[in-house]
This record gives sequence, C-alpha cells and structure tokens, in this order.
Amino acid sequence: MPKNLTYKILEKNLLTGTLKPENEISVKVNQTLTQDSTGTMVYLQLEAMGIKDIQTDLSVAYIDHNTLQAGFENADDHEFIKSAAAKYGIIYSKPGNGICHQIHLERFGRPGNILIGSDSHTPTGGGLGMLSMGSGGLDIAIGMARGYYYLKAPKVLNIELTGKLNPWVSAKDVILYILKKLTVKGGVGYIVEYSGDGVTELSVTDRATITNMGAELGATTSIFPSDEITKDFLKKQGREKDFTPLSADKDAFYDKKITVNLEEIKPMTAMPHSPDNVAVISELEKIKVDQIAIGSCTNSSYTDLMKVAKILKGKKVHPDVSLVISPGSSNILKMMAENGALGDLIAAGARILEASCGPCIGMGQAPKSEAISLRTFNRNFKGRCGTKNADVYLVSPETAAVSAITGCLTDPSIFGDMPMIKIPEKFYVSDNYFIYPNNDRKDLEVVMGPNIKPFPLNKKLTTKLEGKVLLKTGDNITTDDIMPSNAKLLPFRSNIPELSKYCFGTLIDDFHIRSKKSNGGFVIGGENYGQGSSREHAALVPLYLGIKAVIAKSFARIHKANLINSGILPLIFKNKNIYEQFGEFDHIELNDIIHSLENHIEMTLINKTKNIKTKVIFEGSKRDIEILKQGGYLNFAKETDY
Amino acid sequence: MPKNLTYKILEKNLLTGTLKPENEISVKVNQTLTQDSTGTMVYLQLEAMGIKDIQTDLSVAYIDHNTLQAGFENADDHEFIKSAAAKYGIIYSKPGNGICHQIHLERFGRPGNILIGSDSHTPTGGGLGMLSMGSGGLDIAIGMARGYYYLKAPKVLNIELTGKLNPWVSAKDVILYILKKLTVKGGVGYIVEYSGDGVTELSVTDRATITNMGAELGATTSIFPSDEITKDFLKKQGREKDFTPLSADKDAFYDKKITVNLEEIKPMTAMPHSPDNVAVISELEKIKVDQIAIGSCTNSSYTDLMKVAKILKGKKVHPDVSLVISPGSSNILKMMAENGALGDLIAAGARILEASCGPCIGMGQAPKSEAISLRTFNRNFKGRCGTKNADVYLVSPETAAVSAITGCLTDPSIFGDMPMIKIPEKFYVSDNYFIYPNNDRKDLEVVMGPNIKPFPLNKKLTTKLEGKVLLKTGDNITTDDIMPSNAKLLPFRSNIPELSKYCFGTLIDDFHIRSKKSNGGFVIGGENYGQGSSREHAALVPLYLGIKAVIAKSFARIHKANLINSGILPLIFKNKNIYEQFGEFDHIELNDIIHSLENHIEMTLINKTKNIKTKVIFEGSKRDIEILKQGGYLNFAKETDY
Repeated sequence: MPKNLTYKILEKNLLTGTLKPENEISVKVNQTLTQDSTGTMVYLQLEAMGIKDIQTDLSVAYIDHNTLQAGFENADDHEFIKSAAAKYGIIYSKPGNGICHQIHLERFGRPGNILIGSDSHTPTGGGLGMLSMGSGGLDIAIGMARGYYYLKAPKVLNIELTGKLNPWVSAKDVILYILKKLTVKGGVGYIVEYSGDGVTELSVTDRATITNMGAELGATTSIFPSDEITKDFLKKQGREKDFTPLSADKDAFYDKKITVNLEEIKPMTAMPHSPDNVAVISELEKIKVDQIAIGSCTNSSYTDLMKVAKILKGKKVHPDVSLVISPGSSNILKMMAENGALGDLIAAGARILEASCGPCIGMGQAPKSEAISLRTFNRNFKGRCGTKNADVYLVSPETAAVSAITGCLTDPSIFGDMPMIKIPEKFYVSDNYFIYPNNDRKDLEVVMGPNIKPFPLNKKLTTKLEGKVLLKTGDNITTDDIMPSNAKLLPFRSNIPELSKYCFGTLIDDFHIRSKKSNGGFVIGGENYGQGSSREHAALVPLYLGIKAVIAKSFARIHKANLINSGILPLIFKNKNIYEQFGEFDHIELNDIIHSLENHIEMTLINKTKNIKTKVIFEGSKRDIEILKQGGYLNFAKETDY
Repeated sequence: MPKNLTYKILEKNLLTGTLKPENEISVKVNQTLTQDSTGTMVYLQLEAMGIKDIQTDLSVAYIDHNTLQAGFENADDHEFIKSAAAKYGIIYSKPGNGICHQIHLERFGRPGNILIGSDSHTPTGGGLGMLSMGSGGLDIAIGMARGYYYLKAPKVLNIELTGKLNPWVSAKDVILYILKKLTVKGGVGYIVEYSGDGVTELSVTDRATITNMGAELGATTSIFPSDEITKDFLKKQGREKDFTPLSADKDAFYDKKITVNLEEIKPMTAMPHSPDNVAVISELEKIKVDQIAIGSCTNSSYTDLMKVAKILKGKKVHPDVSLVISPGSSNILKMMAENGALGDLIAAGARILEASCGPCIGMGQAPKSEAISLRTFNRNFKGRCGTKNADVYLVSPETAAVSAITGCLTDPSIFGDMPMIKIPEKFYVSDNYFIYPNNDRKDLEVVMGPNIKPFPLNKKLTTKLEGKVLLKTGDNITTDDIMPSNAKLLPFRSNIPELSKYCFGTLIDDFHIRSKKSNGGFVIGGENYGQGSSREHAALVPLYLGIKAVIAKSFARIHKANLINSGILPLIFKNKNIYEQFGEFDHIELNDIIHSLENHIEMTLINKTKNIKTKVIFEGSKRDIEILKQGGYLNFAKETDY
C-alpha cells in the first residue's frame, strides 16, 4: 500500500504497538530539545529518575525564553540547566544564541528523524521533513532517559498546495489562510502533511513558518517533504551529509485531503484574540498601529529579516510606532550585520533586541494600554503580550515592515516591487554559544539555586472523587489562561508554589484561594480546553492546587496528555448540552472511577447541587489509565519501563 | 583675577546672587535632559505648573531606562513623556536610540553651556567642556518652565593630569584611581576641574567617562577644557559650529588642587560594594567570573566598544561567562555593524542587548545567586544589579573584554598589544529615533495611562514635629537603599503609592508598615546620607510615608536638595557622637523649628526615650528655608517666581 510520509517515518522508528490511527504506539526518539521555561522541570524530572546517560542521538538544551533576567531566578535556571546538560551529555545553547526552533533547523534538524521538544512549536522542524512533536516536559524527560515516546498513532491530513504565490504573499499568509479555513480545532488528532507543486514555492524556513503555526491548528505536528530545496538549505548550513530525500508515495493514503491554491491567497492578518480570526488585510478599515514586533520562531529567519531590512532601507519608522526586531539566531544577526541589512534597520529607527523569543512569550515589549500591536508571531491570545487590554494582530514580516512605515495595518502590495532575497551560498555558522558535553562526566553535579523547587507529585487515584466546581470556563481556554506566561511569571517556572498564585489569572484572580478553601476540586471546561502551548505547568499547578479532574466538552492534545501525566482526570461530557446546567461552586461527585477506567466504560457524574446525574467519558489508552491510577507519569515511570 | 573654567561659565550665565563659594546663586539654564525613570515626575510637575512653552535653548526627553517593558506601565510612561514633549516643545528620543548621556554628547552638548538633567550622571557632558549638573526632577521642571536653576556656588577642585597613560590603562582606570584617592565623599561641595598636559591623552568620550563617574566622588559636577580634541569630536559629529575653545586662565584660583600622574595608574577595579573600594587588579588573588556586562553611560562609546570588539575578534567568550553588551547609542551600533566589529562580537559569543541603560540600572541581566559580575558601569552598590547576594566589580572595557576570554578578573596587559582604535572621519548620525516638536502645539494634550499617579504634596511646615525614629542607618546610605531601583520597581516610577511599599527595601522589609503604624516619623542617618543617583523618588516616597525630617551626620548634595524640595527637613547633628545614643523607635521631638530656621540658629532635638537634649543644624539658603516652610518646592513655586 502506498504510504504517506508521516507513516514512513513512524514505521521506521516504531518500537511497540500497531501503526493504525487511534492505536497507542511507541517510537524511538532520535532527538530532543528543551527551552528554559519548560526545561527546568524536564531536568528536575531527569534528575529524579537517576539516569546516567541520555538515550537519544542528540539532545539540546536551549536558553531562549527567559533572557531578560529581571532577577536572579532566571540566571539560576540557566545555570541549573547548564549543569544538568553537562552531567547527562546534552548540548547546551547559551542565552544570546537565539530561538531553539530556528537554531535547531540551522544546526541539528535531520529529515526523517523524530524530534520531541518541550515546546509546542517544536513542529517547526517539520519544515525540514523531520517528524517534530511538542510534548509535555515529562515526555521529553522520558524520551531522553529511555529513548522512546508514546503517542496515539495520528490520522494524517494532506494539504496539497497548488499554484504560485502572489507577490507580497508569503508563508505566514499561507498558514493564516489555512487557519481561517480549518480553525484552531481543525488539526486536532491529525498530523498535517503538505504536498503538491506549491511546495517548491517555499524555502525550508518558509515551510518551517507553516509547520510552526500548525500548532495553532491543534495538529500533532505538520511536515513537508525533504527535497532539493531541503538539500540546498542543509548544504548552505554545511550539513549536506544530514540530507535524505523523503516524500509520500504516489497515491498515498490520507485520512483527509484538502487543496489550497496559493494564487487565491492575499496578505492576511489574524485579528484579536485568536490565530484563526483571520481576515484579508485589504478588506479591513484603516487601523492605526502603536507597536510592531518582528521575530519569534515563526518569522525570524534570515530571509524574513532580510525582507524587512530591504523594505525599511532608506525609510523611516513612523513616529507613532515602536518597531522591535528580535532575530532568530546569532548567526542571522551576524550575517545581517556584515551585509549591511542590520545597519539599514537601525538607520530606519528600529529597536534591535537580543536573539531570543522575547516579546512573543511576553518577555518584555508589553505595548501601552489599549495598544494595537502587529506581530509576526504565532499567537495573539488576550494578555499574552503582557498588556491585558491590548489588541494583537498576527501578520507576515512583509506586512509588518510596510506597516511600520505607514503607521497603519497595511497590505504590503501597495509598496511597489517586492524585495527579492538572495540566500547566501553559505550561512554563517558559529559554535561559540554552544557548550558541548565532555565524555568524562562522572563527577558532575547539578547546581540548584534557591528559586528551584521540587515539582509536585500526585497521590494514587482513588475510586471516588468529590468536591466543588471551582471554575467553569468557556470554549478554547488556552494554557495562557490556565497558567499565564509573562515577564513577571516566567522567572518562577521552576517554582510551582509561587506560580500557583496566578493560576487562571486571565479569568479570575482568586483561583488559588478558592482551591485552598475547598481543599481542591474540579474545573468544568468547554471545547478545545487547554489549547496553546505545551507547558506542563498548566497541569502541574492545578495538581499542586488539588484539582482532581477537568470535565470538558473536548481537550487539546498536549494539555490532555499533561493532565494525565500529572494524575488529573481529563473527562469529556457524553452529552455536551449538559455543560450548560453546571455552575461554579456546584458540589459534584464521581464514583466507581477505577472500575470504569479499567473496563473502558462511561463514568457517572453526579451534580449534587443541581440534582443531575450524567455520563462522562475518559478517552485514553491502557497505559494512560495505568498512569492515572499511579497518580501521574513520574510515579508510574519509577515503577515500570512501560 | 585669573578665573577657573567653572566660574567663567557660571559668570556668563549668572542671573542672581554673588558668585562666591557657599553663596546661593541662580544661573540661566541653556539645556535640560530627562530620562524616563525620573522624567514622568518632571513632566507631571511641568504639567502642574500650567506653562505653555519651555524657556531653555534646548530640552530633550530621552527613553533609555525602562526599555524592557515587562508590563504596560513602561510603554504608558513612554507615551506620556512623548505627549508632554510634543506639547511643551521638547525633543523626544525614542527607545532604542540609546543612553541619554551618550546621545547628548553626540548630538546636543555644547562647550560653555549649562545643562541640567534629572539623572545623576548628567556630568557626562563635562567631557565636552559643558557645565552639566544632575538635579532632582523638580529643579529640571523649573529649569524648563522658568529657564533658571538655583544652586550653591561651588568650591572648585582642580585635578591636574600629568604624564602619559600606560598601555591598557584607560579613562575608567583614571577615575577609579581618583576615587581610591578621594573616596565617595571627596568631591562633596566641589566642582572638579581637570587641567594639565595629561588632558590631551584623553578623547572627549574618555573625558566623559571621567566626568560621568565624578558623580561617585559626590562632586556637583566635573569639567574638562574645550580644546582641539573637543573641536575634532564635534566636527566628526557634524557640529563644528557648536565648538568654542574654553579653558581656565593661567594661574586661576582653585579652592583645592591635586595632581595625578597618569603614569602611576595601573588597571584598576572597584570591588564590592562601593565605587571607591578600589584595588590594582594585578595585586588581587584570582577571581572567577560568572557574568561580564559592558555598556552604560560610563563606558559605551564608539571607542570603548571598538576596543572590546578588537580584543574579542577571533576569540571565544569563556563557557562559564555570560557576556552582555549594551551599546551607548543606535549610531554606535550602526557603525559597528557596518565596520564588522559587531560581527566579531557575535562570533565570539557575546549577547547583544538594545542600546539602553539596561543592566546598569538593574533592568535585566541580574546575575545568578552569589555571582561575580564584572561591569564597566559606574556603581556597584549592593543589590543594584538585581541579585542581592551578587558581587559586582567595576572595571574598564579593556579589562572586561580580556576577562571575558579568560573567565577570571584579569589585568588586560597580559594580553599583548593594546588595540588601537581609529576614530572615523565622520560619525554616523541618524535622526530617525527623534521626534522634533511642531511649532503649532496649542491643541496638544498629554496622555496619562492608569499607572501614572499624581505626585504627593507636603503640607506647610509646623513649628513643632514629634514622633518615632522609624529607622537608623549607617554611613553612605545610597538612594538605591532608600528607594531601590530594579526591573521590578522601575515600572512604578510614576506611581509613588506602589513604590512606597519598597522604601528602604535593601535594609528592612517593613519600613512602609512602620511608617503607617506610627503615622510617619523620623530617619536617623550617618555620613553622606543619600549618595548615588538624583532620583527624587528617594525623597517623594518618604514624603508620601510621612517622614518629617532626616537627621544625619552629613548629606549627599542632590539628595539633600530633593529632601528640601519635598518639604522634608534635612538636619545634621552638631555633635556627631550623639548619633550613637539614638536608637530605632526612640520618641523624639523638634521645637521652635520655624523661628530657628528663620534666624539661622541651631535647633534643639529632644530624645524623650533616652532623655537626651542635643543640637541639630540646618544648612541651607534663605530660599531653601522658604521652600521648607511652604512644604516643598512645588507649593513654593506656585506662589512665587523666586
């Protein structure tokens, strides 16, 4: 049977299970990556497992999120990660080197490999034809410690790209167009596989922009074939040896197929506050802009930033606009310094920030009150930029650069000829921000500063759970809602007790007080509960606060896995309409839990306050059930090699 | 009578008073500058005065302190300052343009002019032969509104520089050497005037490094002659027309004279936690370094950063060192991008931050717990770097760069040939970060975000004050102790109620609670109380908390003026030994205050708890007394044009 690309890679790496959609399988992990805001937890877990060496081909610990360092906490985290990397044989990327996904593309990504990363935008690697999945930190720790990764074999959605891109339309517009079509739930349960003639319109970093924001579709990951364009990219990075050609077989099977004609796409924007709230820019009324931010793992490649520099060359940033640019990597910054492009950006009045995630993750550059901010980033959730009442529009680098001159959200095609970027014959490559592990590591110790607290462990699951509904949310609640991420909170990513004070902070201020008063309880959610990032803090903090189960209409994939890993039951309403009848502070009860889980039967949920009896469902594998029974993955992993 | 340079400039600008040391005089203000962390208060005061136009030749509002923007507060402050600048006819320098003092040297400073600025490092302009004084924000507001500045005519201390600098010794080592000699109190009451053959060893920015750190001597300001070197600098900045030759007359009178032989100076460091705790590096034991920070208004000139780049070219930053570089201005960054030096820094593994004050003011780059941090900055007070238990060493850019390679505090002369920097024929000059005011400004309004709170006003002075000693401090208490300045607090510089929670935060945690409980009270200080920055928050916050008087052994100049401006009595013990007998929470009383002030007689201080009667002295002008009686300068200014 002709195979799609996804299943070819899964098959090559398959360790256990049958490769059929919905089946639980385990695969060999070739590479892992962590970043610093999720990484401290990963290395605490690795430390708790007491291993000696990692089992992957390559693991990299990047520092890119918390680089502002408003207090000692960040620098202590960096030091802790650096020491853990040295101890376990992991490559350490110093702050200033750039954004994990961009550097991983440049330096380490390999077509056909499986990469898992403790960051939801790990799918960026799909631009190189690598199966790259974001996951909770514990999965990454297990991936390093044991060399495997458990997942539900995905369905595969094929997006065939046809035709040619219009001038001034780029990869960001393509993925925004797809988000408009499919919505933030459109990719749930799927890996998105791109094919078609249109693929040759896109460079590796263009493709990476598209697979990066595949995370916003809710997809497990996205992948492009590995072709001559891939080979050329790797060659220019000095890594031709890492190239393998890879594509789906002709007439390969797909669970779903759609076709996107690139010619239909115009410059787009995702309006506040969701990446799928997409409009064609030329169809909008005039919108005056206060801030423009260019960068992030979505749009900070050499080509992206060179386009921006060419547009701004000899021009002036509008006086009412603060234009900030954070390059994807130190290598890109160096190339742009040397070819004059950086000088052009500075001459125009741009603010040049360190090569890091920066404002995308809310680390600085919070816009003013009620600002309009255009960003080339991947998420525009309310409050993520650091200013609760600001409106963020997601756009392409071209749109951002032209709008920086006009001071309004502007369709860039009014600007005249589109800048053409010649990719250099050789990309600059530096090793001076990396620390490679020594072979002899036996006496190394990890260094833990005072802000690094042990992560919480759950207790074994009991067969009856009861308590109050502490919060009822609407649809599409993000991990940014559950555990807000901003410059004030990121320093506490390794300090769960401190973080817990801000749980559900975008919705209510007193969740942690409610939890403590009621000695824990339940959360009721709507559709797509837990969309957004991979941060397991959005499960670890509820665990710390005594949340026993989240009952929702549906869950986002990574967050659901994180709940299970933390020993919190993720349950869905059998009858979604019953959601309406549940209220905050209702007293509810679940009975006969273990028996129901083990026999894969529906569970009875009783709302004592409203006198309702209804059914809820746990969807998960046998292994998931074992993990839940043990009170989370770490308890489970200590007792088994399963 | 032959005149010194200082008195020549004062005489040219004299408005009222007799030009004799200790006399109160007022002078015409040619220029003012503000930065954003003190600037919001200045413009709130300007707004309260209800003026139409500024009375200076030139006023500039720089944004350089709060550029991280962890929340909306900073961006709102920027917008407020931008709108006030537009309304009153002030030039606005956008964030990203660079550090106020460096840009002011490049673009606006003029030999022979009087500049006052709401930043204690305003003396940087002395490198250009300009009389440049830091002052409290209210003085700057009055300077803009009325065009005059009141000060006590200073004594003048002449430092004659002789001989030639040794290789690898630079301006920073010279001022550290002088600080060792004179201590942080050595300049109090003086303007420091440099002369001698050694002056020609120093470029304008070298001279600026020395006058900049003259602030650490406690001097009112420092000044160099304006000579051919000055002319060359101005010409290269495209401002030859701003040049005037200026120097002291032969055999001019000085209140004090010392000679410094440049040949005696070796690479120096100021050890924790005071800029005068200076040692010769080669005489110290080996010290391993965790972080190195290069930049700040002291050492971020083109020449300084080019030297660093030349040293690091082809080398690698030590793996255990985080090297961060914040350029002084966007112009410098552009020149270094274009001549390849920036590329060399990146290739070596340096972290490149935005052109701003950054880590010098504790805005980011807090080192890890118990770190050793080398910094080319001007202050190493405990906690200022953002990490309470870190040790900061102040060094030259050469020492910083060589130490970044070795990983230890290193005398740079071991490195081989000293890098020679050729200053370009023309400095790059850009206007794209400036917003120049329009001529027609009549309908403009200021924009005030929700974090901007009105500044506090005091009440008229009563003739009897009594209450508790809320705090007793040691010697050399800094404004960083009184009102800590770090990344967490800088966003609240326009929000006194919020700031007040952290008053004296480096000493005790509950000062604001003590104050509230006791309904205000007194502070007892040692020698040189209030040294450090010009921030009037260190007086406004105590005013807000109900502090009635500070009784100390001696005061730092700017802070004393700020206390008077806030209506808080700065009193000194007649008998310094009695200080020992005062304790915290003693109940004390001052009687007959107004009569004593008006008649310039000693005041009686009664310690009821200890049953002590002693004398305290107010040293100030008639005008100071009037300001105190009205409850501060703003109350006073509203009622008079004096």
